[in-house]
Amino acid sequence: MIDELKSPSAFIGVEGRDIISFGSGQPDLPPPKEVYEILPSYKAFKYGLIQGQINLREALAREYPSSAAESFVITNGASEALDLTLRVLAGIGEKGGKVLLPRPYYYSYPFSVKFAGMEPVYTDLVEGRIDFQDFDQKVRDCKAVIINSPSNPTGRVESMETLKKIEKLTNDLGVYVISDEVYKDLIYVRENYLIKGPHVVTINSFSKTYAMCGFRIGYLWSLDQELVNKVIEMKTHTSMNTNILGQEMAYQATRAPKSFIEKQLKIWKGRRDLICEGLLNLGLDLWKPEGAFYVLPKVKNPRKTVSELFRKHRVITYLGGWFGAPDRIRLSYALDREKIEEGLKRIGEYLKKS
Amino acid sequence: MIDELKSPSAFIGVEGRDIISFGSGQPDLPPPKEVYEILPSYKAFKYGLIQGQINLREALAREYPSSAAESFVITNGASEALDLTLRVLAGIGEKGGKVLLPRPYYYSYPFSVKFAGMEPVYTDLVEGRIDFQDFDQKVRDCKAVIINSPSNPTGRVESMETLKKIEKLTNDLGVYVISDEVYKDLIYVRENYLIKGPHVVTINSFSKTYAMCGFRIGYLWSLDQELVNKVIEMKTHTSMNTNILGQEMAYQATRAPKSFIEKQLKIWKGRRDLICEGLLNLGLDLWKPEGAFYVLPKVKNPRKTVSELFRKHRVITYLGGWFGAPDRIRLSYALDREKIEEGLKRIGEYLKKS
Repeated sequence: MIDELKSPSAFIGVEGRDIISFGSGQPDLPPPKEVYEILPSYKAFKYGLIQGQINLREALAREYPSSAAESFVITNGASEALDLTLRVLAGIGEKGGKVLLPRPYYYSYPFSVKFAGMEPVYTDLVEGRIDFQDFDQKVRDCKAVIINSPSNPTGRVESMETLKKIEKLTNDLGVYVISDEVYKDLIYVRENYLIKGPHVVTINSFSKTYAMCGFRIGYLWSLDQELVNKVIEMKTHTSMNTNILGQEMAYQATRAPKSFIEKQLKIWKGRRDLICEGLLNLGLDLWKPEGAFYVLPKVKNPRKTVSELFRKHRVITYLGGWFGAPDRIRLSYALDREKIEEGLKRIGEYLKKS
Repeated sequence: MIDELKSPSAFIGVEGRDIISFGSGQPDLPPPKEVYEILPSYKAFKYGLIQGQINLREALAREYPSSAAESFVITNGASEALDLTLRVLAGIGEKGGKVLLPRPYYYSYPFSVKFAGMEPVYTDLVEGRIDFQDFDQKVRDCKAVIINSPSNPTGRVESMETLKKIEKLTNDLGVYVISDEVYKDLIYVRENYLIKGPHVVTINSFSKTYAMCGFRIGYLWSLDQELVNKVIEMKTHTSMNTNILGQEMAYQATRAPKSFIEKQLKIWKGRRDLICEGLLNLGLDLWKPEGAFYVLPKVKNPRKTVSELFRKHRVITYLGGWFGAPDRIRLSYALDREKIEEGLKRIGEYLKKS
C-alpha cells in the first residue's frame, strides 16, 4: 500500500502504462551514445584514485575557469558531494554550525545538514527568488549557505545581481557558499553564472546534463584546496573511489558534441512552455520556470490534491511540503509531450470536480 | 615526492616495472567473466532503488539464512555500509557512544567511528586473536563493537568459540555488533562462521571475493529491520542508489560458478604458504595468516624498514602503526608468486644489511 503523502520515495518503482508521473526529477531521454560505446571493451577492475580518475578531472578542469584537476573530487552523485562538504564544514572551527537554506529548498538539504551535525536555518523566497535583505540578516549567523540556482523545486534562476551580492557578502563575512549547480546546463533565460570565491564549493553532476542519474557520478570543485583535501581524506574512509566504470562513462559524456546539450535544452524548453501554459490555462498560480524541469504551482488543498490525483486520476505529483512549500505541489516535466498533455487533461478534470 | 610514512594513500598510483608492492589489499586477478558479459548490451540509465536492485538483493538473500531481500542495503563498497551503519547507530538512544575495536584494526575503523561522532575504544589482540576477558570488560561500556574475522591486517580468524561467546554477551548486553566479513570467502582453516543476532549488522562486499574493488559494490545485512530502514533513509540523502551498472555486474558475479571462488582460494592459499615460509625463513616473527591476504610480521624499526624497503629496494610495505600495530609492518600478498619471491629476496637483502 503506497502512502503518497509520506515522501518522494513512496513512488519509487510505481509504474504502469496508465500512470502519468510528474514525480521523480530525472531525464527520460538517454545519455549521449558515447557513454555506452566504451562498454564492450571495458576490462578494468582495480581501485581508482579516491579523488577521482585523472582524465575525468582534467576534462572538468577545462570547463571551469582558472582551475586544475586537483580542485575536483568525483563523488557518488551530487548527494555525496554535498554530504562530504557539510561533514567537513561541520568539523572546521567551532563544531557544527548553522547552514542557511533558501526556502522552498531541495528535499534533501535539511536532512543532509542535520545528518552532518549542523543546523538548518531558512530564508523565505519572494516570488521564487532570494530576498537579499532577509538573506543578509540571516547569513551573518551562519557557517555556510546553500545556493541552488536553477532551483529544484522552484525552477527559478537567481538574478546575476543577487548572485554577485551574495558572493561579496559571504566573502566579506567568511561564510562558505555551497553552490549546487546541477541544473546549470538547463537554463532557458540566460547563461549560467558560476558563483566564485575563495570559500565557494561548487557541486555538480552528470545526472541532469547527461541523463546519467543511475550511474551516480557527481563532483565538487573548490579553490579552497584545504577543504578539498579534507573531503578526500574523509572519502578515503567513507566510500573510497567512486565507481571506476561510471567515471569512465562520465568522461566519455564530456567528449560528446556540445550539440547534445543544446538539443536537450530545446526539448526541455518546449516542455516547459507546454506545461506552464497548460497549468496557467487551468487557472493555477505559479512561478514561471527559468531553468531545471520543475514547476511549483499553488493549489487549494495540496494533500488532497496529491492524493486524489494519484488515487483517482493516476497522476503522480509531489507535495510541496516536502520542499518547504506547504501551499504548493511540485511537478517535474521530465516526460514526453503527449504524456504532459494527458497529465494536464487529468489535472483539469480533477480541478473541475474539486 | 612520496611520503611513504604518511598513510596508505601515499602509494596510490605508485607504479613501475621494478616496484614490488605488498601494499594495497586488492586482488590482482580479474573478476569472473560473467561480470563483463552484460556490458555490450547495457542501456539503463535511470535512478535505481536506494536500497539496491531487487535481483541483487534476492540473490544475496539466498546466501544468508532466514533472510529476505528487504534485510539488505547495497552500498558504495563496504566502506559506505560501515559509514552509514555507524552514523545511524550514533543517532540511536544517547547521541554518539563508544565503539569497541579489536587492535590491530583495519586502518579506516577509527576514522569511520570518529566521523560518525562516536568514540573508538580498543581491546588488544593476544597472538592476533581477541582476548575475551578484556573484550568482556570493555564492551559493557560500548554501544557497538566491530568484529573483522578474517582480519585485515592480521590475517587471523577468530575461533568459533570466541565468536559464539561474543554473540551471547553482546546479545545479553544489547550491544550492536558490526561484523565486517569482507574476507569470508578467503579462509584457509575452516568455513566462515556467520555471526548472528537480532542486533548484528553484517557487512560484506564484492571487492575481495569477486575482485571488484574499483566498482565499489558492498552491502549490509541485518535482521534489525528498523536499523536497515534508517540506513536506507540516510542513504536517500547522502548518496542515493549505488551505481546501477555496478550492481548489475555484481549480480552477474553471484551467477558465476562456485568453482570461481574455490580456484581463487587455492591461489591465495599457495601464496600465503609461500610468503609465510619466506618470512619465517628470514627470521621474522609473525602470526600465521588463516584468512584474507595479509601478514603482519614484527620488525625492529618499522619506520626505517618501510622507508628503506621502498627507497632502496623498491618494495612497498605498509606501516603497522596505521593499523594500531606500531611494532609491525603489513604485507599484502595480492601479487603473483614470482613477484612474491622477488620481494622476499629484496626484504632478505635489506634485513641482512640492517
